[in-house]
Amino acid sequence: MKQTYAIIGLGRFGGALLETLVANGQDVLGIDINEEHVNDYRDIATQVVIADAQEDDVLRKLDIASFDHVIIAIGHNMQASILATINAKDLGAKNVIAKAENRTHLRVLTKIGADVVVQPEREMGERVARKLLAPNMLNFIELSDDYSMAEVQIVNPAFYGRSISNLNIRKKFGLNVIAVRHDGDVIVAPDSTYKLHEKDIVSVVGPKDMVDDFDQLTNNK
Amino acid sequence: MKQTYAIIGLGRFGGALLETLVANGQDVLGIDINEEHVNDYRDIATQVVIADAQEDDVLRKLDIASFDHVIIAIGHNMQASILATINAKDLGAKNVIAKAENRTHLRVLTKIGADVVVQPEREMGERVARKLLAPNMLNFIELSDDYSMAEVQIVNPAFYGRSISNLNIRKKFGLNVIAVRHDGDVIVAPDSTYKLHEKDIVSVVGPKDMVDDFDQLTNNK
Amino acid sequence: MKQTYAIIGLGRFGGALLETLVANGQDVLGIDINEEHVNDYRDIATQVVIADAQEDDVLRKLDIASFDHVIIAIGHNMQASILATINAKDLGAKNVIAKAENRTHLRVLTKIGADVVVQPEREMGERVARKLLAPNMLNFIELSDDYSMAEVQIVNPAFYGRSISNLNIRKKFGLNVIAVRHDGDVIVAPDSTYKLHEKDIVSVVGPKDMVDDFDQLTNNK
Amino acid sequence: MKQTYAIIGLGRFGGALLETLVANGQDVLGIDINEEHVNDYRDIATQVVIADAQEDDVLRKLDIASFDHVIIAIGHNMQASILATINAKDLGAKNVIAKAENRTHLRVLTKIGADVVVQPEREMGERVARKLLAPNMLNFIELSDDYSMAEVQIVNPAFYGRSISNLNIRKKFGLNVIAVRHDGDVIVAPDSTYKLHEKDIVSVVGPKDMVDDFDQLTNNK
Amino acid sequence: MKQTYAIIGLGRFGGALLETLVANGQDVLGIDINEEHVNDYRDIATQVVIADAQEDDVLRKLDIASFDHVIIAIGHNMQASILATINAKDLGAKNVIAKAENRTHLRVLTKIGADVVVQPEREMGERVARKLLAPNMLNFIELSDDYSMAEVQIVNPAFYGRSISNLNIRKKFGLNVIAVRHDGDVIVAPDSTYKLHEKDIVSVVGPKDMVDDFDQLTNNK
Amino acid sequence: MKQTYAIIGLGRFGGALLETLVANGQDVLGIDINEEHVNDYRDIATQVVIADAQEDDVLRKLDIASFDHVIIAIGHNMQASILATINAKDLGAKNVIAKAENRTHLRVLTKIGADVVVQPEREMGERVARKLLAPNMLNFIELSDDYSMAEVQIVNPAFYGRSISNLNIRKKFGLNVIAVRHDGDVIVAPDSTYKLHEKDIVSVVGPKDMVDDFDQLTNNK
Amino acid sequence: MKQTYAIIGLGRFGGALLETLVANGQDVLGIDINEEHVNDYRDIATQVVIADAQEDDVLRKLDIASFDHVIIAIGHNMQASILATINAKDLGAKNVIAKAENRTHLRVLTKIGADVVVQPEREMGERVARKLLAPNMLNFIELSDDYSMAEVQIVNPAFYGRSISNLNIRKKFGLNVIAVRHDGDVIVAPDSTYKLHEKDIVSVVGPKDMVDDFDQLTNNK
Amino acid sequence: MKQTYAIIGLGRFGGALLETLVANGQDVLGIDINEEHVNDYRDIATQVVIADAQEDDVLRKLDIASFDHVIIAIGHNMQASILATINAKDLGAKNVIAKAENRTHLRVLTKIGADVVVQPEREMGERVARKLLAPNMLNFIELSDDYSMAEVQIVNPAFYGRSISNLNIRKKFGLNVIAVRHDGDVIVAPDSTYKLHEKDIVSVVGPKDMVDDFDQLTNNK
Repeated sequence: MKQTYAIIGLGRFGGALLETLVANGQDVLGIDINEEHVNDYRDIATQVVIADAQEDDVLRKLDIASFDHVIIAIGHNMQASILATINAKDLGAKNVIAKAENRTHLRVLTKIGADVVVQPEREMGERVARKLLAPNMLNFIELSDDYSMAEVQIVNPAFYGRSISNLNIRKKFGLNVIAVRHDGDVIVAPDSTYKLHEKDIVSVVGPKDMVDDFDQLTNNK
Repeated sequence: MKQTYAIIGLGRFGGALLETLVANGQDVLGIDINEEHVNDYRDIATQVVIADAQEDDVLRKLDIASFDHVIIAIGHNMQASILATINAKDLGAKNVIAKAENRTHLRVLTKIGADVVVQPEREMGERVARKLLAPNMLNFIELSDDYSMAEVQIVNPAFYGRSISNLNIRKKFGLNVIAVRHDGDVIVAPDSTYKLHEKDIVSVVGPKDMVDDFDQLTNNK
Repeated sequence: MKQTYAIIGLGRFGGALLETLVANGQDVLGIDINEEHVNDYRDIATQVVIADAQEDDVLRKLDIASFDHVIIAIGHNMQASILATINAKDLGAKNVIAKAENRTHLRVLTKIGADVVVQPEREMGERVARKLLAPNMLNFIELSDDYSMAEVQIVNPAFYGRSISNLNIRKKFGLNVIAVRHDGDVIVAPDSTYKLHEKDIVSVVGPKDMVDDFDQLTNNK
Repeated sequence: MKQTYAIIGLGRFGGALLETLVANGQDVLGIDINEEHVNDYRDIATQVVIADAQEDDVLRKLDIASFDHVIIAIGHNMQASILATINAKDLGAKNVIAKAENRTHLRVLTKIGADVVVQPEREMGERVARKLLAPNMLNFIELSDDYSMAEVQIVNPAFYGRSISNLNIRKKFGLNVIAVRHDGDVIVAPDSTYKLHEKDIVSVVGPKDMVDDFDQLTNNK
Repeated sequence: MKQTYAIIGLGRFGGALLETLVANGQDVLGIDINEEHVNDYRDIATQVVIADAQEDDVLRKLDIASFDHVIIAIGHNMQASILATINAKDLGAKNVIAKAENRTHLRVLTKIGADVVVQPEREMGERVARKLLAPNMLNFIELSDDYSMAEVQIVNPAFYGRSISNLNIRKKFGLNVIAVRHDGDVIVAPDSTYKLHEKDIVSVVGPKDMVDDFDQLTNNK
Repeated sequence: MKQTYAIIGLGRFGGALLETLVANGQDVLGIDINEEHVNDYRDIATQVVIADAQEDDVLRKLDIASFDHVIIAIGHNMQASILATINAKDLGAKNVIAKAENRTHLRVLTKIGADVVVQPEREMGERVARKLLAPNMLNFIELSDDYSMAEVQIVNPAFYGRSISNLNIRKKFGLNVIAVRHDGDVIVAPDSTYKLHEKDIVSVVGPKDMVDDFDQLTNNK
Repeated sequence: MKQTYAIIGLGRFGGALLETLVANGQDVLGIDINEEHVNDYRDIATQVVIADAQEDDVLRKLDIASFDHVIIAIGHNMQASILATINAKDLGAKNVIAKAENRTHLRVLTKIGADVVVQPEREMGERVARKLLAPNMLNFIELSDDYSMAEVQIVNPAFYGRSISNLNIRKKFGLNVIAVRHDGDVIVAPDSTYKLHEKDIVSVVGPKDMVDDFDQLTNNK
Repeated sequence: MKQTYAIIGLGRFGGALLETLVANGQDVLGIDINEEHVNDYRDIATQVVIADAQEDDVLRKLDIASFDHVIIAIGHNMQASILATINAKDLGAKNVIAKAENRTHLRVLTKIGADVVVQPEREMGERVARKLLAPNMLNFIELSDDYSMAEVQIVNPAFYGRSISNLNIRKKFGLNVIAVRHDGDVIVAPDSTYKLHEKDIVSVVGPKDMVDDFDQLTNNK
């Protein structure tokens, strides 16, 4: 289902966004005030324009309201980000996603009408922190305040060779084993007789604190 | 299990990393050449230092090799990032995680010995793109090249009030339903008689293309 | 009736505002990031502070919400003006008057909650233009869309020595003569037998177009 | 009566001046050293020129002496403002209006021959201060050192429903009521039996201190 | 007869002025905004002050009106030169000598009240030009539009060994020989029998064109 | 006798030099790295060139050695002045006159071969100082260490109406009166019966200290 | 045997390298981001290109892998030097010689694959130091840790007129005399009867400490 | 024999010079205008001073004439290098070695009295070029215009195992073999029966062209 996107600001964040969208067959217009940035994406984007989105004329001429999504990915120039956002909204842009530098910037963008505001570096900082804190928990989804789903790697020798039922994962931790990755293969809903090997990655779902306890246990080298 | 971290560069990425680690009870030293950045984290970090990490003396005096993790989170100064990384590795730092600006920077950091290299803005660009492309797929974990796990929100009225078995999710899509979020509660391993409501979030695991098909179907408003 | 004012930005506009308020016995706190500007008003203001109002801590410590009026008189830094305004409103400031550089800036300030927005240079530009267009109309108040009050100077010799009644101002123009300034003196509600002299200034009230016609007529040298 | 104007400096003040003059059917030449500023008024002004008015050749070639009015609206460059003014006067320009940054600048401009000098931001600062000090005095004209005319809004409930004669405005304050604005309509020279309503705006003329007293009284909420 | 001087601007021109005045036993106050310049003259001047003469407070505190002479020797900052000059005159300084960069600057300085305006580099340019044009005319004083006095060096062998009377200088050129410098000695009012030697320097007075002709003749090598 | 000049550096000093030489019918080439400076003299000079005289190629192509005089009038860039000078001398330029910023610069220019070095601002500083010290000594030529010639204005009423012989100028001061300027006319070798008037300008020659004494005496108002 | 060279960075080091290689008949491509630098070598190099070698596209288009030698002679921009080096190596360049600013830079260049790293200013500093320490040792080659070859000038009068055998150089110092330079001529393998003259330059080979002793002895003036 | 050195400019060249001299037991004073540079050598040099050597006072106070050697190692500021050099010479410094940026700079330094002028980057450029051109000629000393001494590495298999006499080096090339380095050892004046091995380094002396021919031959792989 092809949609149209206008990305204002082709720095690293906007650029990666553009590349991924185009790779998924979407129509993407890239806009940047900097000619060099624009040239980097000339052969990738559906269309590129060198323009200053702080000028409302610029967005009007590009018929910004006709795009399904408008992403304000402007890097460090907070004023430019604010003016581009208000201009886009005033011209009737439907889905405006804006990138904020900090909390105050986020509040301004929200008040002037941005539909979604993201803080990529902050969010990545938190993701990397979480990975450092639980290095063998490879992926993690927060289902609710109490429940989570996680991928945990088995690096504690005490687990090697023991079956899921023998480990009593469900009873002891209240966790369901959804899948096991073994040597590149995925076994969905593994049998409880499945015996864990070193480096196996177990996907579990259940109460958050139990998931954490299970992660700590598998981590004891 | 408390560990020690040295974060070099306290911009938005480094700062968010520091805050999350400290909030999880870790010992974190924050280093930046810019006094303002350092002051922002003076009351949060275990310790802060104003210093230029390009100078090897600086890292030696901080006994950089004694930290469990060293994160080079330097923003836009590629040279500073490279010199800090090589100095840290030469002084024996064990786990050096460095942030790269672009692909060439990433290659340099890898060659001079960084243990992990991240590109936060690029990675966030890709995450946001993915969300735009599949807006009702709330979370997504790639288990292998073929299998994935995803949270999909039910926004297609055709699904409302139908049970998991009636929808034949397992047969038609080869997907296992791991959990359902309904109105804030999580039902792990729901019964196949469970009837879906508008806005329910269904966690499924199975072959990637099937997950995508299921997502598309639930997306048809 | 003494009130308290915080003026953020002590340039020409903020400075004149501060001086006039202090001269009228008000309590005024002057804030600027620039030490020189602050020093210019140190002996005039009730209190002055060198601080960056973009930081919300700064405004919180000054207890900005306790002032009867907060004026954001920041000159050319649009970002600083926006951040100071949102911070002041978020901290509960009641009456926030902000100065805008241009129309888009005005829209942003309004959306983020400024109670009044002024554009001093633009307004003065219009006032000076009006004066150039009707040089002998010394003052002008728009009472409604249709009515106005104006001070018109008599420079057309055809008027010299003729009485108000003889000129038939009320009948011909539908204007009331409220006052006449003659050689420094003011005659309120002058008698209709009063004879106009060269350079007399006549205050009239009535329909706008009639005021304009009367002004044109007195202007014919 | 069409006249010709040359405006040197197309910032916010000069720009608003130009727009208002053109809107009133005047012939206006806009001059600025900055191409961007010039482009903003290309479609509005009668003519625009990119030029440095510090060079006397520039003003000579534009035949500056042939304009009815020359406005030096140069923003922050005091030297440019001074040189443009002296060049314009030396070339025989008749009515030179110059914008000053501060008191010393004003003195220089006066000495070198500017016919009128204005300080827009300072004057606006004073106007805004006056409005803050007497918020229900909507407009104010100083007729002489002793007399003034003012529009005062009735916000004191003690006045509601009382007639002009009953309030004894003329006797108690020595003020003449010239007009009343009620709900958008203007009643010129209202009858003394007219009864005031909440939010009515009364135009009075008389001794200054009496006008102030009357304003204070109507202000007592 | 000791006098007091204030020199504002201690560049090369102001500095040389200061040194010569002090060497002649005068009281000199040196003022410059630049600390380095001030330090160069700290041990030479009667007093030095680091201050910005654009601020009228500065000149008031220095009691500028009490000096016999005020020299505005500010180098390249035309605005500073103009503001310092008007401030000095407004404060009652008697003899204000100002240095101009160019003709327009000179006109401004004159209009705002400078008593004398000099253009050192221009005047030296003309002096050097004159020396290049008449290299053996060592010194030259213009007595009136028609008469001049000059020192001419004898480098034309045709003159060697001939007496003043024999050369008939008075008759042929209408010139009076006032003095002759010979080998370091000066002979005032030399006898007409005096015979000229190579390199003798003859001081003559008379009509300008005759002085020039005489110079040309002595120049013929 | 027409000669050829190359002037490198068309600032105020070089420009005045160029103008005076051209006004005297000389052939002058003007060279400057700055296009604006060059344009100022395009219509005045025989020829102008925009070029960087630090490059020896530039001076070689201009055949610098073919000029009768080369003047290095470069303003503030000491390095450019030094390199242009050495390049000119190395290419065989005969008469190189260079302008120095300060004493060290002067020594360098002399050592690398400049034929004459001038310091215009310093020399003018000294001239102005001398004029301030002896304001009624209008002109002054140093003939030798002991003798001088000077123009002195009569402003002491004690001299008014007295004849040259009566004043005994020759006997009392050992000075010869060469000329007297009276009301615009010049009387060369005036008769000893000539009676001095107020404001007469007397040209005298004689011992230096006597000239000074005479000047002091005429100065006693 | 002609080879091909690409030199990136045409500053003093790269430029001298290019000149010497071209003078020896080699094919050299010069690359610099700075147009001026490129122009200096346009007529000397086989080919020149203005380009930014930090961009990998640039080096790919120049087919950098096809050159026999690639020299990264970039001056002060450490980042540019690092990126150019990694790009060259990744594209398959065989012999990459890179210039380092300091020790850390050298380590980075080595790790990312530079085949040879030079530090020209440091090496010259050491060479000049050695010459200052042993001023009459004109040249010096380190053959191994123990042996060296050196040219020593005879400035000790005690040696004048004595033969090689008489001085017993071989026995006393264990040194072989390879050659003697006398007055511009070279005598290879001189006879032991050869008598040394003042300023003769003797080339010796032998143990390092003996070479030093011999040098010290000949140095005793 | 300890001597005293003053090094002005502590960049890479000056710094390496200082380190080598100190390592050889010399007394070295380091001077730089840049505090950071000075700090790098504070613990290494005998003494360091932060000062601007362009000021002659600075060098006078340091008693620059008392040093055995003065090295002007100033990097890129040509003016500073010239002024420091002339100041040092004027103050009587005996041995002044100055570093030049280019040929013109070299000429200036020579003219103003520098005893020795070096161009490190240029000289290193030539050395590296020579090494590239003759990669197996490890060292090279030019004895005269006709004779040289060189170290040549044997990499041509045709030479392996053949004796010096068999190769007929003396007859065929007119070269004397002074020494051979074999596997780390040095054999001075080797026997003519010595057989060459792969990678042996042969030191020869003789006519330049013969040395080159020999080098080419050994180079044929």
